[in-house]
Amino acid sequence: MNITSPFSVNQTWLRCMQCGSIYSLLAERQFRCPCGGLYDVEHDFSHIPTAGELKYLFNLRMGGFNARPEPWEQSGVWRYRELIMPFLPPDQIVSLAEGNVPIVRAGHNLREWTGVKNLWLILEGMTPTGSFKDYGMTALMSVAKAAGIKAVACASTDDTSASAAAFAAAARIKCSVLMPAGLVTAVQGVHPAIHGAFIIMLPGSFDDCMRVQQELVANYGVYPANSLNPARIEGHQATAFQIAHYFGWNMPSWIASPVGNGSNCSSVGKGMRLLKERGFVTDTSRILGCQSEAACPLARSWSNSDRTKKGWLECYQPMEVGETTATAARIGNPVSKDKVIREVIASNGAMEIAMEGMLNEAVAVCGSDGIFVCPQTGTALAGIRRAVYRGVIRPYDTVVAVSTATGLKFAESATRHLEKKIVRLDNCNTSSVAKILQL
Amino acid sequence: MNITSPFSVNQTWLRCMQCGSIYSLLAERQFRCPCGGLYDVEHDFSHIPTAGELKYLFNLRMGGFNARPEPWEQSGVWRYRELIMPFLPPDQIVSLAEGNVPIVRAGHNLREWTGVKNLWLILEGMTPTGSFKDYGMTALMSVAKAAGIKAVACASTDDTSASAAAFAAAARIKCSVLMPAGLVTAVQGVHPAIHGAFIIMLPGSFDDCMRVQQELVANYGVYPANSLNPARIEGHQATAFQIAHYFGWNMPSWIASPVGNGSNCSSVGKGMRLLKERGFVTDTSRILGCQSEAACPLARSWSNSDRTKKGWLECYQPMEVGETTATAARIGNPVSKDKVIREVIASNGAMEIAMEGMLNEAVAVCGSDGIFVCPQTGTALAGIRRAVYRGVIRPYDTVVAVSTATGLKFAESATRHLEKKIVRLDNCNTSSVAKILQL
Repeated sequence: MNITSPFSVNQTWLRCMQCGSIYSLLAERQFRCPCGGLYDVEHDFSHIPTAGELKYLFNLRMGGFNARPEPWEQSGVWRYRELIMPFLPPDQIVSLAEGNVPIVRAGHNLREWTGVKNLWLILEGMTPTGSFKDYGMTALMSVAKAAGIKAVACASTDDTSASAAAFAAAARIKCSVLMPAGLVTAVQGVHPAIHGAFIIMLPGSFDDCMRVQQELVANYGVYPANSLNPARIEGHQATAFQIAHYFGWNMPSWIASPVGNGSNCSSVGKGMRLLKERGFVTDTSRILGCQSEAACPLARSWSNSDRTKKGWLECYQPMEVGETTATAARIGNPVSKDKVIREVIASNGAMEIAMEGMLNEAVAVCGSDGIFVCPQTGTALAGIRRAVYRGVIRPYDTVVAVSTATGLKFAESATRHLEKKIVRLDNCNTSSVAKILQL
Repeated sequence: MNITSPFSVNQTWLRCMQCGSIYSLLAERQFRCPCGGLYDVEHDFSHIPTAGELKYLFNLRMGGFNARPEPWEQSGVWRYRELIMPFLPPDQIVSLAEGNVPIVRAGHNLREWTGVKNLWLILEGMTPTGSFKDYGMTALMSVAKAAGIKAVACASTDDTSASAAAFAAAARIKCSVLMPAGLVTAVQGVHPAIHGAFIIMLPGSFDDCMRVQQELVANYGVYPANSLNPARIEGHQATAFQIAHYFGWNMPSWIASPVGNGSNCSSVGKGMRLLKERGFVTDTSRILGCQSEAACPLARSWSNSDRTKKGWLECYQPMEVGETTATAARIGNPVSKDKVIREVIASNGAMEIAMEGMLNEAVAVCGSDGIFVCPQTGTALAGIRRAVYRGVIRPYDTVVAVSTATGLKFAESATRHLEKKIVRLDNCNTSSVAKILQL
């Protein structure tokens, strides 16, 4: 570590969750331990204020509404900065006022459809780039800025590239995005370009893009913005902090979220453990991880196992993914699998598989209450319904579903599903319209 | 008025801005006075708390973060409900937790491009259906619910139909949307269907849709959710209230917004006049109304006139619209023109025309700071730049631009603009990628 670093390895560090080795967060570029293990970010919390003092502070930061020149002062992530990145100087924070989202009670139709009366949604799509990725990306890009990074890269077909490009723009860091030509929609391809990212389409698969990105990191000094980078988990813990704060520091019975690469479960789990360790809450929620039947390596192995960590790991096998509208979670071998397993087991949680028809129906039911969610959110909602049916979730439990993105980002798949519902008339007579509307 | 009405015509009423006649808000369906004038909603404010008491209350409502079962308790619109709809009982409010959006200082690039150091953006796209329409629609649908309405209809190709469908769903009111077949994109067509709206495509123009809608209202008892309905203006005043609140009840020098049918300027102007009358602020902001060169009937007539209300009205003529990426404001004869003229003149404001190239450039510059806005927001930003160039806005003025929607809703037009920036490689070699990235 050089002397100008914003924090030392005694304050914030990386620890391999497999072999326990410690590394510098600011110096690291590969984000995979030589032993093959994933890293956790850890902090020395011995000098932060008490839970009582912090609760007061967190409330204070929500209060009033004053001209605050820095976007992080309106962020629902950095509101909890003593828990997220306690040693990061505020002038290193890269923020777009992200994560100040509503937590709403589900509407009539969704409550009835799932069978959960006390069902809530945290609408993480109401954030700058329209998906939960902003929660983690604000932390990743802040670490990149603190580390003096000049260029980041990611290989991504989905929300990650848009979020990385937006936060890199805010940080004035160059960003390049590698995508497989012909395998992304026009809008997916262009969203990062809006933020000035350099987009390169490769004539190969997503795996080819990933390999090129890793070689850029290893040989050309580029910083990776992908899921292996555990700084993203730190920011994304705010999901757990917001839910705890909202419910008066009493965790709900369950938090349900879709599982793609696994960052949602990993972040919620790590955040809840921290809240309990630091005395913010006495109990943690049980995590319900939900996967579509097309891409359910974790849910399938969980249900085949004896539901212990060891048994689950033994049953786990990557899978060949099928077709699903929940494309953003269409992953056969999740990067953060070990963290998902750790957190689901630690929270006494469960996994569910959402049938393809059910996850699309969940999006439609949610829409019929006025809320347009992405198909991945549909996976979580269908998982809740199934868990109720199987008696895992009880009808009177309080359940929070993580809505990971706005449906607007996946409008094309919704189009296919609903176009048949549009009525096309062959005349412009009001009486014809009135007849169809049964007026 | 029947006896079960939530408020009487002595508490909240409609007044024709032309002839002064008074009508019942709950009983009205046509929303155009027999004399041809537009209606304003007016309230008896004589019994509401003082400005000082309300400021305290508004702050209190932002503070803390507690499980609030009703979405309106997290709404950035209904936070100001004593000013918006003081006699509406809370159980009649139809809300999706809308309008709790950030106001952020513009990034480096946009500040430099416009020439305004003290430039801010209110990001009204970070709301449930992705556009500012939610601000007004929550008020309209609440009035519809209070009036016992069973079915609403709108003729719209744009954000209005999506917002109407979402809030109708939340209110459990039937919604039908009339669209001209072949003149809307697939996503525009399907978004209202997500919320269960009945979508009817007519083989005609947008004007045919409008005529059928008006006949449904006149002859079949359907309630109109269109721009003529002034309840929308009431909710949308929250833009002015939020800006005032944010800047400590000192209005910025200028508020700039795009002008389509004119509801933005009308709402901001009416809201500011109310704030001044009730003693919340001592001065109001000057309104800068901005139109694209393709659809600038108000800006063109303003600049040809002597800048008095009478002179402007004399110069005004509807125009044949041209092509523009700012499609949501591609309107040759704005419905609320008389209100725009009233508010721009009352605020000592101005109008600007944004060249097509400049409004697209504005979206790109804003994107390069990490914020993806719609082309209509681009119109406002390009208008600010031009007003600075012409000496109307001074470089040290505080300016707030209203960002009316997220760019995600207009990603298709952004795609056309940026596709040429994507690099397509003919191999998957890391060295080729590194060369392009100049690493």
